[in-house]
Amino acid sequence: MRRTVFTRDHEDFRESVKGFVDRHLLPRYDDFVRDRLVARDVWLEAGRQGLLGLEVPEEFGGGGAGDYRFNAVLGEELSKVSAGMASCFGVHADVVAPYLVDLGTDEQKKRWLPAFCAGDLVTGIGMTEPSGGSDLAALKSTAVRDGSDWVLNGSKTFITNGSSADLVVVAARTDPDRGAKGITLFAVESDMKGFERGRKLDKVGQHESDTAELFFDDVRVPAENVIGEVDRGFVHMMQRLPQERIGAAVSNTAHARQILDETLDYTKQRKAFGKSIGSFQYNKFTLAELVTKIDVTQAFVDQGVEAHARGELTPIDAAKAKYWSADVQNEVLDACVQLHGGYGYMTEYRVARAWMDARVTRIWAGSNEIMKELIGRDLGL
Amino acid sequence: MRRTVFTRDHEDFRESVKGFVDRHLLPRYDDFVRDRLVARDVWLEAGRQGLLGLEVPEEFGGGGAGDYRFNAVLGEELSKVSAGMASCFGVHADVVAPYLVDLGTDEQKKRWLPAFCAGDLVTGIGMTEPSGGSDLAALKSTAVRDGSDWVLNGSKTFITNGSSADLVVVAARTDPDRGAKGITLFAVESDMKGFERGRKLDKVGQHESDTAELFFDDVRVPAENVIGEVDRGFVHMMQRLPQERIGAAVSNTAHARQILDETLDYTKQRKAFGKSIGSFQYNKFTLAELVTKIDVTQAFVDQGVEAHARGELTPIDAAKAKYWSADVQNEVLDACVQLHGGYGYMTEYRVARAWMDARVTRIWAGSNEIMKELIGRDLGL
Amino acid sequence: MRRTVFTRDHEDFRESVKGFVDRHLLPRYDDFVRDRLVARDVWLEAGRQGLLGLEVPEEFGGGGAGDYRFNAVLGEELSKVSAGMASCFGVHADVVAPYLVDLGTDEQKKRWLPAFCAGDLVTGIGMTEPSGGSDLAALKSTAVRDGSDWVLNGSKTFITNGSSADLVVVAARTDPDRGAKGITLFAVESDMKGFERGRKLDKVGQHESDTAELFFDDVRVPAENVIGEVDRGFVHMMQRLPQERIGAAVSNTAHARQILDETLDYTKQRKAFGKSIGSFQYNKFTLAELVTKIDVTQAFVDQGVEAHARGELTPIDAAKAKYWSADVQNEVLDACVQLHGGYGYMTEYRVARAWMDARVTRIWAGSNEIMKELIGRDLGL
Amino acid sequence: MRRTVFTRDHEDFRESVKGFVDRHLLPRYDDFVRDRLVARDVWLEAGRQGLLGLEVPEEFGGGGAGDYRFNAVLGEELSKVSAGMASCFGVHADVVAPYLVDLGTDEQKKRWLPAFCAGDLVTGIGMTEPSGGSDLAALKSTAVRDGSDWVLNGSKTFITNGSSADLVVVAARTDPDRGAKGITLFAVESDMKGFERGRKLDKVGQHESDTAELFFDDVRVPAENVIGEVDRGFVHMMQRLPQERIGAAVSNTAHARQILDETLDYTKQRKAFGKSIGSFQYNKFTLAELVTKIDVTQAFVDQGVEAHARGELTPIDAAKAKYWSADVQNEVLDACVQLHGGYGYMTEYRVARAWMDARVTRIWAGSNEIMKELIGRDLGL
Repeated sequence: MRRTVFTRDHEDFRESVKGFVDRHLLPRYDDFVRDRLVARDVWLEAGRQGLLGLEVPEEFGGGGAGDYRFNAVLGEELSKVSAGMASCFGVHADVVAPYLVDLGTDEQKKRWLPAFCAGDLVTGIGMTEPSGGSDLAALKSTAVRDGSDWVLNGSKTFITNGSSADLVVVAARTDPDRGAKGITLFAVESDMKGFERGRKLDKVGQHESDTAELFFDDVRVPAENVIGEVDRGFVHMMQRLPQERIGAAVSNTAHARQILDETLDYTKQRKAFGKSIGSFQYNKFTLAELVTKIDVTQAFVDQGVEAHARGELTPIDAAKAKYWSADVQNEVLDACVQLHGGYGYMTEYRVARAWMDARVTRIWAGSNEIMKELIGRDLGL
Repeated sequence: MRRTVFTRDHEDFRESVKGFVDRHLLPRYDDFVRDRLVARDVWLEAGRQGLLGLEVPEEFGGGGAGDYRFNAVLGEELSKVSAGMASCFGVHADVVAPYLVDLGTDEQKKRWLPAFCAGDLVTGIGMTEPSGGSDLAALKSTAVRDGSDWVLNGSKTFITNGSSADLVVVAARTDPDRGAKGITLFAVESDMKGFERGRKLDKVGQHESDTAELFFDDVRVPAENVIGEVDRGFVHMMQRLPQERIGAAVSNTAHARQILDETLDYTKQRKAFGKSIGSFQYNKFTLAELVTKIDVTQAFVDQGVEAHARGELTPIDAAKAKYWSADVQNEVLDACVQLHGGYGYMTEYRVARAWMDARVTRIWAGSNEIMKELIGRDLGL
Repeated sequence: MRRTVFTRDHEDFRESVKGFVDRHLLPRYDDFVRDRLVARDVWLEAGRQGLLGLEVPEEFGGGGAGDYRFNAVLGEELSKVSAGMASCFGVHADVVAPYLVDLGTDEQKKRWLPAFCAGDLVTGIGMTEPSGGSDLAALKSTAVRDGSDWVLNGSKTFITNGSSADLVVVAARTDPDRGAKGITLFAVESDMKGFERGRKLDKVGQHESDTAELFFDDVRVPAENVIGEVDRGFVHMMQRLPQERIGAAVSNTAHARQILDETLDYTKQRKAFGKSIGSFQYNKFTLAELVTKIDVTQAFVDQGVEAHARGELTPIDAAKAKYWSADVQNEVLDACVQLHGGYGYMTEYRVARAWMDARVTRIWAGSNEIMKELIGRDLGL
Repeated sequence: MRRTVFTRDHEDFRESVKGFVDRHLLPRYDDFVRDRLVARDVWLEAGRQGLLGLEVPEEFGGGGAGDYRFNAVLGEELSKVSAGMASCFGVHADVVAPYLVDLGTDEQKKRWLPAFCAGDLVTGIGMTEPSGGSDLAALKSTAVRDGSDWVLNGSKTFITNGSSADLVVVAARTDPDRGAKGITLFAVESDMKGFERGRKLDKVGQHESDTAELFFDDVRVPAENVIGEVDRGFVHMMQRLPQERIGAAVSNTAHARQILDETLDYTKQRKAFGKSIGSFQYNKFTLAELVTKIDVTQAFVDQGVEAHARGELTPIDAAKAKYWSADVQNEVLDACVQLHGGYGYMTEYRVARAWMDARVTRIWAGSNEIMKELIGRDLGL
């Protein structure tokens, strides 16, 4: 069905993103996979094209779009390249941006946002800890006030952009007795003493996206680097969940749809037993089901994007979109691998990498089980 | 997520439908189930309230709404009572209406539509034949021209309103050599000689909805009763499929959601092992999944309703909505039965009847397999 | 794969059961469905053929087979008629028998078993209560000692053979303070004062099997009617669970396989679009999957039957067989309905009744959720 | 349930295999993954321990076991290390062995089998071609008789042990006009002129198992290297399918069970929200389902192993075991990844590699779709 969420302006923007993708991402994708990193010059190019600061006010170097649908378009086009590509740019431009833009002081914005928008200052966000998984309220990293600084200790894991980020927003416990009410956010900069990065983690997929452990050993973070209010970090994080979740849903859906489209073409061309494999009724029905599943999911995600653009998206509806789309993405890609036969198991085929890339979307940023727990609670259960 | 498909006008109309439901349908539902028939006086009451002719022009006694979303609201509210209730009214007001309104001659409209809108003339549609299932192009019923009449022979089965209808739109082969291009539609009236009805079929569910076989033995149908063009019946039917399918999807979704809501309440009240059964994590997650599944499906169906209201809905998108929603409806209701434990197997519980009622939605009006075949073809497979 | 669980003796016995089925059950099945009861003369006939007392010692009128595999053969052949038929005979001969045979005093055995084997004394078992579902430890029925009698109060529901049983083994609380350790079993006879039966419950399926609520209002049960040890009823019940569960698994599998075989035949004969519907690849694959699913399940159930015949079957392995086979049965039958198209929704077709009949097997005698809870605990979780 | 397929002898053999695994495979697994090859000295060690020639007669250096259950034990223990390890040894000892033992001339056996058993001569089998997938009858490789030689041209792909094999059994077309009746098998040796190997294929998983394309450019294969009868290769292959398929099923099941056991332990140790993650009811039920699924599958596979040991296993029953176990393996491993949370996506965790390794089992050696096609045909559809 014709999508109604985007206007002509969004589609024009999509064309410009496609240009960037065609010139700078697709030709170098294999290199990024090999290097386990998106090269910095590509970040700078993205900055030049205005892709990194869509929701940053113009006075700080951003686009000042004030319309989440542009973020969604960017997320879709990056996801068509790969889920990992969408992830490393998305963490920066979609997830970290609101912390700096909404919560940053004027001084902080001036200090960081221009470089953020230019691609000079790549960012990440450090919530998850080795022992804690999805349980944010159980954070073990601590920050203790000492004069005008906070002294930060602890570690974080599974941090996207972890090895390359110049600035990481880190959640740490500042009041040991107050659970979720004693957490504060800090902007930790890469040159701070005591801030170490572990090796790049060897993931199943998304190799182009660098992921690392971070270690904080008596890192002195000046008070000027506190993001938002002291002890209010948990609330700050909760308020930004709708955008993180709907962004994940946008990406999951676009990624799966792109590979499904390519698979559909493949099944028309590939022959077996004298006819195209897509013309066998079982495969034909499978493809009909997959296309329907994506269309249905897209309708819900689009509804969520529209709601978020209106400022109405709830964390629960975003949770539904995130977990559902992750399931659909994984089901679709698994079926696409199968439709490719043996070639679907060869990493030179896009479908193989896509399948490996997608597995984490049911886990990261709050696993599907966490989402269901939240939805269940919201139902009064 | 807040639904955006309906306006204030539609919601006002919904309130009036609810009034009709509360006064006339819910109190007598058990009687209709026992009698295997919705009593005629209720049809007349529906007519008085203007529910039967929403898309019939005012000059012929209808509401002249010209907006499919009113049909959708009616379908939703009837489905909340039962799938069978939605079906017998839906076949009349949603499925048959367009044949008479779009294809009828002025004379035909004057003759039938006022009574149609009043509930005096209940209608059905006769496509399916005992031997043929979903294969409309293989129709065996024939009509042969004889003077100013057509002589109709054959039989139809699974006809909703079959035993009570005063007029049935019947598809018959008028050119034996032209396959789909030799089918014509006829308005067969209940007092025509040679038109016999079989016993009411004993179905798994939807007992309140009368379903019957119809037999035509040399029935003389005057040429004035041809609906649309001779030999163009197949095209006439194809063009009306989007509305039939999206109507089914609207009903499937509303029906499942209603029972799910009731089940959610049940799981909050019913206790086992010392706590409400909905609070057990497995049940909680199950309910979270069911609610998500319905919300996702609703988004797609609403998108279809909007498209149809704009005149843009394709048969293929409608096919997606129909089969998908039928699957979801059945999955949701199966889980709702399970959440009721032993009571879910007792017909005095609404969930038990709903489960039995819903099983046919994956079969009727083009089975899910037929829908997938059509979608697959549309993909170029 | 060739089944290896049964020997020539078992297969000979199967032939004799088939004779009984063909002469006495199949011809009268529709009557039993209409009457919501298996006629008593059929019970007597079953008794005459030695089908009711397979595990009752010969001295008390039974067959003294001492080999559970004969029970399994009987269960399979009855299930091929219908799940309800297997249920009403199974509760008597498979579920209640061990209580009387293993736990009965010599006096009790003499008193009840000859009539039990003859079909003169039909039995049931009363565990489930309206408020309690699967939570046996929360029983509310009470029995208080008064002289040489116990005074029984409370109610039971979903009791198979409930309206026709001459003797019901009823679990009641005899020590209010000891939870599962304060439950005793009583043989309640139909002529005891204060023992009332509710109406036959109106179930979704299994209409030939009478199911009822039972009410006990100051029923004086003489101490001679205590089954097993006072306060040890819970243990007595737990020890008999493997047989009840594997019996359910045997029935679930045989029932589904029978209808699947019939459906396979149907798909070879029924034509659509010019060929047999089973020859369409999607249907062909579906049937291949269903047959595989049944074969796989049969292997596990047979393994369980063999283990039980050796006296080695654990309640947990039996729980696995019960829940798994119930799921498979329901999936298979749902697909069989779909393969029948509209006819699958007509109760005159065996598949339609089978589908309705099977829905309860995921619920009764410990729901699938209860089984999973038990299995999970056994895993140390 | 206690498995009954193996005797004490088989279990003793299992212990010796475990010794080999513990000393030679587990400590070097990471190296093999890195090198994309199992080192030759390990093959030699396996040969010394008698693991490579279980079904080779003693006179040719084998164990002469004559009991497939020993192969099954070996396959299980190797699969517990990894699916890839089971694959490269299995292709040699389980798949290729019967071609040489059953079809080889006495001269061929003397020439190859001693080295085959010793690990000096590693073998592979070349059926699949780039254009053909699972359609063996459509082979394009050709061999043309020229004097006492055959001249072989064509290519093969997805060949396990492809880059390291000293001898590959290759199927080629020897009669262009006779379809499946014009295929012959050849033993192609690695030093034959015109035999080239492509690079090792970069697979999603099973990195320790070398897989390659093979190219044949006017390779002169002497007539003494024909395996079996000329033009009878298709029949020779068909007759060996039961063993290949049941071997795959054995491996799929053992692999999944091993990782499931490890995951169960993990869920008992890993804490979240203050308790072990396995104790959350949703996870507990998930684990109960997974264990049940494996147990059920094991029963069927064991039945197949027993049938094959008796010489009774049909290709169709083997096809059922292969496809079913592959589905179960993939479902189980996918759930195990999820239970590991973020760590399940890190390749240093065994579950992550296992998940990647398993994806191909639904595709190789006849995809699940091919298996269903065969089963469907066998049903008469």
